[in-house]
Amino acid sequence: MDDLLPGMLRVTRDGGETLTRQLTDQLRHLITEGRLAPGQRLPSSRQLAQSLGLSRNTATFAIEQLAAEGYVILSAGRRPLVAEGLSLDRRKLSSRTSGSGRITVSAWASSLHRANWPPVHDGRPRPFQPGLADEREFPHDDWSRCLRRAARNAPLRRDRPINHPPLQEALRSHLVAHRGIKADAHQILLVPTAQAGLTLVAHALLEPGDHAWIESPGYGGANVAFHAAGAIVSAMPLDAQGMAIAARKETPRLIFVTPSHQYPTGRLMPIGRRLELLRFAEVAGACIIEDDYDGEFHYEARPVAALQGLAPSPRVFYLGTFSKATYADIRIGYIVMPEALVEIFELAQRHMGMLASITMQDALAHFISAGAYLGHIRRMTRLYKGRRDRMLQALATEAGDRLAVEAPAGGMQLLARCRPQTNDQQLSARLLEAGIVSRPLSRMLYHKTGERGLFLGFAAWNDKEIDQAARILGRIVR
Amino acid sequence: MDDLLPGMLRVTRDGGETLTRQLTDQLRHLITEGRLAPGQRLPSSRQLAQSLGLSRNTATFAIEQLAAEGYVILSAGRRPLVAEGLSLDRRKLSSRTSGSGRITVSAWASSLHRANWPPVHDGRPRPFQPGLADEREFPHDDWSRCLRRAARNAPLRRDRPINHPPLQEALRSHLVAHRGIKADAHQILLVPTAQAGLTLVAHALLEPGDHAWIESPGYGGANVAFHAAGAIVSAMPLDAQGMAIAARKETPRLIFVTPSHQYPTGRLMPIGRRLELLRFAEVAGACIIEDDYDGEFHYEARPVAALQGLAPSPRVFYLGTFSKATYADIRIGYIVMPEALVEIFELAQRHMGMLASITMQDALAHFISAGAYLGHIRRMTRLYKGRRDRMLQALATEAGDRLAVEAPAGGMQLLARCRPQTNDQQLSARLLEAGIVSRPLSRMLYHKTGERGLFLGFAAWNDKEIDQAARILGRIVR
Repeated sequence: MDDLLPGMLRVTRDGGETLTRQLTDQLRHLITEGRLAPGQRLPSSRQLAQSLGLSRNTATFAIEQLAAEGYVILSAGRRPLVAEGLSLDRRKLSSRTSGSGRITVSAWASSLHRANWPPVHDGRPRPFQPGLADEREFPHDDWSRCLRRAARNAPLRRDRPINHPPLQEALRSHLVAHRGIKADAHQILLVPTAQAGLTLVAHALLEPGDHAWIESPGYGGANVAFHAAGAIVSAMPLDAQGMAIAARKETPRLIFVTPSHQYPTGRLMPIGRRLELLRFAEVAGACIIEDDYDGEFHYEARPVAALQGLAPSPRVFYLGTFSKATYADIRIGYIVMPEALVEIFELAQRHMGMLASITMQDALAHFISAGAYLGHIRRMTRLYKGRRDRMLQALATEAGDRLAVEAPAGGMQLLARCRPQTNDQQLSARLLEAGIVSRPLSRMLYHKTGERGLFLGFAAWNDKEIDQAARILGRIVR
Repeated sequence: MDDLLPGMLRVTRDGGETLTRQLTDQLRHLITEGRLAPGQRLPSSRQLAQSLGLSRNTATFAIEQLAAEGYVILSAGRRPLVAEGLSLDRRKLSSRTSGSGRITVSAWASSLHRANWPPVHDGRPRPFQPGLADEREFPHDDWSRCLRRAARNAPLRRDRPINHPPLQEALRSHLVAHRGIKADAHQILLVPTAQAGLTLVAHALLEPGDHAWIESPGYGGANVAFHAAGAIVSAMPLDAQGMAIAARKETPRLIFVTPSHQYPTGRLMPIGRRLELLRFAEVAGACIIEDDYDGEFHYEARPVAALQGLAPSPRVFYLGTFSKATYADIRIGYIVMPEALVEIFELAQRHMGMLASITMQDALAHFISAGAYLGHIRRMTRLYKGRRDRMLQALATEAGDRLAVEAPAGGMQLLARCRPQTNDQQLSARLLEAGIVSRPLSRMLYHKTGERGLFLGFAAWNDKEIDQAARILGRIVR
């Protein structure tokens, strides 16, 4: 064996792993593979070093590491002994292992692919990928100063709540003034993403078999979150005012709506429908998730007050994100909660681990308090409104006869409707080949209908990029 | 009515809300309350301004905002008209609403309180709160430079994967070199917290009714995550080597262990037990979650290689966090995944919204690549080892006759055992009154046993703080 061992080892000086690590790894491997048997003695480190052309130190370090890990036993004046019971003996194992050794995942995990959500595009974002803010316009210097301040202030912070009070307070003031929210600061939970917020609300409110309503066409993230909680999801078609409140056999426990600008149609839910929805929820005892994903950007009248502030009793979960009003990398979402549920939801946040970095929360608090947040939103509102108008014009010019586009009341994207029964998925795939990102409307429909179209983002691209991409789009659509 | 309306309104100049907002809010409220009836005409804005002693502009802005929101209808030359169908009519609603109007939560949410996890302490962290790094020792300036660089680099990033490749690569190199991990960079998922990682693995692997094993005493976060996924959780008692692998009637699908330093006993699982566990998992077809929550800090021999790197087939999920090796505010966790499951887990991450901010990920990538991470770990290892020794000595001096303390092999905390049947929860409560934080061992036990003790953190406090707090602890324990 003393002669055989060196032949089983191969250390190279190719600049990768250190020699000690190579030797340790290989000896460990030989032991767990059973090729060095329990009770067997290894060569001394001097012998080992010599036969492999290594320094004595290298061999000694390797043997000592293996001893520290329990692979070999050292005793004075004797050669290292391979410990007992370390072989994994692969052959014996595999004959006893049931099945192929492949890991089976849960029914939930194996169903994820079927949901076809979210659409993921490789590479750098391209026009007209929806949901993107223009990060080139973001005041990165101001933001980096806020981050630096948050990092340097860390040792001064006294308390350790998971939802950072300075951000809760700054965000509350903003939401009260600009979105018509009615809440105390402590009702705001900060979560890693808006989707995490949806998951949290769904799991904390829904029992398997409960009924939940989503808009159709609507946001796929709500659909998957409700399904994950075991709910029976009903797709409620839209009319001109948004989700049509129709009597159904089963009373919903949770209703998901996007009243600021409906996702994906961009329509604003007028006050009449808002109140109808709130009345319905009161009578039904249902809760509402109001997703105000890009509610900061309004282009027509001043924005309508949020459902949350209109509701006669606290049953609305107002959901928002910083990823649209700042840019995608920041990725922090928030929920304005009914007060009575704050405590149980903070516990649920901890149980699911849906906490947002305090460094980020503190930086955002500075960013809002210093006025940089509102200033950015105001600047982007003007910019995005111009881009919306440019996009409407470009689409009318390039494909006015093929696409029917309704001007969205706000937000970062619009829906261009194709003729009914167009294969919008095929169309979207053809556009992608030409470098244009879009989402087919048919992928956002949760009820049977012939509606077809393309969902297009306009906020992240300048006029030249919009014109250029619209030209390509027009060529392919025609 | 024209005369009555001003009496129903009250605007004040107390410096709170603007006058326009007060007026808008109050009129909106009167309409939804039904006190201003549909079809009724309001005074003109001139009349309104006059009777309330406001400027004409204030009244005009308020009326126009209400018109934009759909509450009133304006037509040239006529007074504003209250729109139809806007009253929520509270009395009628409440008589029809079933129940008290309280929101009922899911069975999962209502069970959270019973889990008694996690323990939360108000106010600034105090000795000996477990699980805390000493943030005073953290190189905040280096870190803030990394954050700044990450913020400024944002516009240059080309790709938008949810798990940031530069951090995956930097972390991979670190884990390979220092923890014995075997993985490609893309097998590392970055999640908001380690607990989010646990939730993700539990939901993606466990079906309701599946069996899962945890250590007892052990980490409560694993217990609640497995329960949340519907699993039947078995508490496996420890022996001197860690979780005792005993035959049970039911084969586990998932096993949670803390081999680097068992939570809470601080014991290192020796190589023999590691291999026994891996062999068992192979035969049973079980997966393992190896939680290396503070595996960076080893005080005796060089650390034993992670189970993940030893496993003969890819069935180990290696879980880590930056919150211990850096400090709590940073709050990013990671999972090293079996390669075959990466794609489905990234989809699961998106579905649950468990994404970590790219800004933070990029800053951590810089921090690791620049060597600051390893440097900090090395410095903290020396510092924490000294504090561990100081703590052992202080506890021996102050309460040596009452507490049996085993030196932990590494990490940031230790277990001081009390005499069996001591009421450690009462003891911990008395300590808290005296300003000393501890966790009773009995709260970490998931099987019946008389073991009692206090779980104490030592890493976040300097020698003076340790001595002082140990003196108080000793007085109360005796």
